[in-house]
Amino acid sequence: MTHNRPLGRKDLLGIAELSRPEIVKILDTAETMWEIGERPVKKVPTLRGKTIINLFFEASTRTRFSFEVAQKRLSADSVNFAAKGSAVEKGETLVDTAKNLMAMAPDAIVMRHPNPGAPHALAEAIPAAIINAGDGAHEHPTQALLDAFTIRRHFGRLEGLKVLIVGDIAHSRVVRSNVHLLRKMGSEVVLCGPPTLMPVGIESLGCETSYKIDEVIPKCDVVMMLRVQTERGAGTAFPSVREYSRLFGLNRARVAKMKKGGIVMHPGPMNRGVEIASDVADGERSVILEQVTSGVAVRMAVLYLLLGGAGEE
Amino acid sequence: MTHNRPLGRKDLLGIAELSRPEIVKILDTAETMWEIGERPVKKVPTLRGKTIINLFFEASTRTRFSFEVAQKRLSADSVNFAAKGSAVEKGETLVDTAKNLMAMAPDAIVMRHPNPGAPHALAEAIPAAIINAGDGAHEHPTQALLDAFTIRRHFGRLEGLKVLIVGDIAHSRVVRSNVHLLRKMGSEVVLCGPPTLMPVGIESLGCETSYKIDEVIPKCDVVMMLRVQTERGAGTAFPSVREYSRLFGLNRARVAKMKKGGIVMHPGPMNRGVEIASDVADGERSVILEQVTSGVAVRMAVLYLLLGGAGEE
Amino acid sequence: MTHNRPLGRKDLLGIAELSRPEIVKILDTAETMWEIGERPVKKVPTLRGKTIINLFFEASTRTRFSFEVAQKRLSADSVNFAAKGSAVEKGETLVDTAKNLMAMAPDAIVMRHPNPGAPHALAEAIPAAIINAGDGAHEHPTQALLDAFTIRRHFGRLEGLKVLIVGDIAHSRVVRSNVHLLRKMGSEVVLCGPPTLMPVGIESLGCETSYKIDEVIPKCDVVMMLRVQTERGAGTAFPSVREYSRLFGLNRARVAKMKKGGIVMHPGPMNRGVEIASDVADGERSVILEQVTSGVAVRMAVLYLLLGGAGEE
Repeated sequence: MTHNRPLGRKDLLGIAELSRPEIVKILDTAETMWEIGERPVKKVPTLRGKTIINLFFEASTRTRFSFEVAQKRLSADSVNFAAKGSAVEKGETLVDTAKNLMAMAPDAIVMRHPNPGAPHALAEAIPAAIINAGDGAHEHPTQALLDAFTIRRHFGRLEGLKVLIVGDIAHSRVVRSNVHLLRKMGSEVVLCGPPTLMPVGIESLGCETSYKIDEVIPKCDVVMMLRVQTERGAGTAFPSVREYSRLFGLNRARVAKMKKGGIVMHPGPMNRGVEIASDVADGERSVILEQVTSGVAVRMAVLYLLLGGAGEE
Repeated sequence: MTHNRPLGRKDLLGIAELSRPEIVKILDTAETMWEIGERPVKKVPTLRGKTIINLFFEASTRTRFSFEVAQKRLSADSVNFAAKGSAVEKGETLVDTAKNLMAMAPDAIVMRHPNPGAPHALAEAIPAAIINAGDGAHEHPTQALLDAFTIRRHFGRLEGLKVLIVGDIAHSRVVRSNVHLLRKMGSEVVLCGPPTLMPVGIESLGCETSYKIDEVIPKCDVVMMLRVQTERGAGTAFPSVREYSRLFGLNRARVAKMKKGGIVMHPGPMNRGVEIASDVADGERSVILEQVTSGVAVRMAVLYLLLGGAGEE
Repeated sequence: MTHNRPLGRKDLLGIAELSRPEIVKILDTAETMWEIGERPVKKVPTLRGKTIINLFFEASTRTRFSFEVAQKRLSADSVNFAAKGSAVEKGETLVDTAKNLMAMAPDAIVMRHPNPGAPHALAEAIPAAIINAGDGAHEHPTQALLDAFTIRRHFGRLEGLKVLIVGDIAHSRVVRSNVHLLRKMGSEVVLCGPPTLMPVGIESLGCETSYKIDEVIPKCDVVMMLRVQTERGAGTAFPSVREYSRLFGLNRARVAKMKKGGIVMHPGPMNRGVEIASDVADGERSVILEQVTSGVAVRMAVLYLLLGGAGEE
């Protein structure tokens, strides 16, 4: 199938291994996919007859849903495989599960797994295209791609922009993937959060860091707020939600300090009143819902490029 | 999309807001859909390329299933979104969930929610067609439409019929929607149940009421038995299931008192031996399974009329 | 629909009732289906417009998944109905659930149920084709068919082969279906396991039995290892997993005693290191993953033959 691979690779495992031209190709393809989403009939036959498995070892309705919509728009057949109640719970190893799925000859597997590197293991074990939909705190490449796509739509470029990411930097795969992508594309990234939520060795990421949002917000074009994820161990990292909100939450006063034309982003789901004030979330600088729309376009682009839709005709 | 709306409205939220001609239009369209269900290939391309989200905040396999079959027969793409394990459980508000879904550009959302009015809030927030598949004890419009469709098939009309509804009148959305629809169409409704399961202010519904099924059954053309829903707080409303069955259950003796040509209905799932005797459920007057078939036809009609299938060609 | 039934029967309930020519017809049809699975576009329009319900009263991701892939390859519309959270849990009887589903006019129902005979009750109650996907410890016909298909691909025949089945003979529907099928097709079956996992009256199955795997393994062409199912009451039948593995597990030393050209099978999911050593599972005699691929082909064949796809054109 090599001749049918416009991306020149079998899998999308992380942003780390993507080249700048590959990222540009995905974003450009997503523009075309975005237009399909604006038609009355939002469906093209590009991936008809392709089988895609959505293999989710963690609940993630939002991401799975976005992939499912992307798959249906491309006319692929998708089958959902939730680890709950499956052979996985009977003690089967990941590779055995994967090989079993592979024996049914899917063309691609979209995978979320709590362990960093799980999609990489899968990608080596089987010939289907593997798309990482989040592996622990490691990578979440389609999230970074949809963020970049959204930013590029607003500024016409990624080069030379300054992007502030605020929140739980230490535990976030969104941060890791975004830092990889934005730096490759020539943006500067500023990371901001309470010291307890900044990772050890943060310098190695090559980003400016700050513990005071008010000091860095005026010079940034993009402010990306992260969800306070009490479920990932952030609960003991700051005194109270109220305190967090006061020190790091994005409210109207802080938005007023942003550069002219700056935009506000959030990967969702939001905690309104915690990391982001309700009027900011719904305000004119917010592109949060556009991110969701971008998500479908970017995932369509990735599926199209990996599954070699181009070569079918 | 206004020019493509045969119903002249974006949503189906309740029977209360439907006009008599709108109800007739839905029932007439459902006749056509019923015929599709009798063909060897029960599929038409009418809604090809339309995306429909089934957004269920309460488990309801039966209703969701009926909608899903209707969607597939019309060639729509449907994606199920169960609130379990989703962002909803992470504290996202209903409107945020809805706006997120909307950003994926669905054409319609079929929604069940425990709170009365939830679909109305959704309908105001987003441009997709919203179909209420049950909101708390408020409305369940497609159930009332399928009941009316079934009755009309048997009597050729709704005008001038007397419909007896027996059971937990106070907590039933089926009752509310049916009363609205049947009265608009010129049927008389008689409500019957234990005093503890009759709502305060029942007079305002404009129906005859009775606490003795034997007194009212002989004059009714249709007897609709409601499920004893212990899960909705009916458990303490009468001494025992046996007592309920003796006083309000539909058994062979009571069926014998019905008018010639009268029919027996139940929205399902039935408690055989509680509100309805097993031989009555399977008896010749029972149209209970026909109601299920009607459900698919009526839901196809509603989807077709709201999604402007007519304007596609 | 009788004229459209290439198999001459409405349902596939068990191997017990299949004739030898019927089995051959299914296996031959599966060869064609296998070829479809090797095409770049693995989809044929054969069952377009047919509705198939996957009705699973027990969790079984693997089998359900295989059926779903088979259905999509044949372009059927499939709707999953999990008993969890459904009317079934509200106390509805099996026959009522089935009649309700039937009122939506599906063409086939694939059913798994913990009670032996449940699919047979369903098959009598409703006109849709019923496919038994496992009923308690009774039958699992498509598993036996996929096993036979895999064996036939390797030996070119079933006649005259000796098949050893090792493990929990007493509680396994896989064993029952396999014994029926293999004996009808002229294979000899040897059953081996700890005395506590051999059923009372095992002689009636007409198979050779053994309690010592090392004595029987050298004369068999096929060694089929069963999963140690602690969830089905096998936990108290032998002293420890280690002991089981030592006495009945298939390891490299035992494989070395097998006949030349012999193959190793397992219905999955495997407990590596318990009933089968990891290097044996991945070794050159193992056809375990091929069984999974066979599963899709055999299920496509069964759906095609029961739903009379042939008569559609």
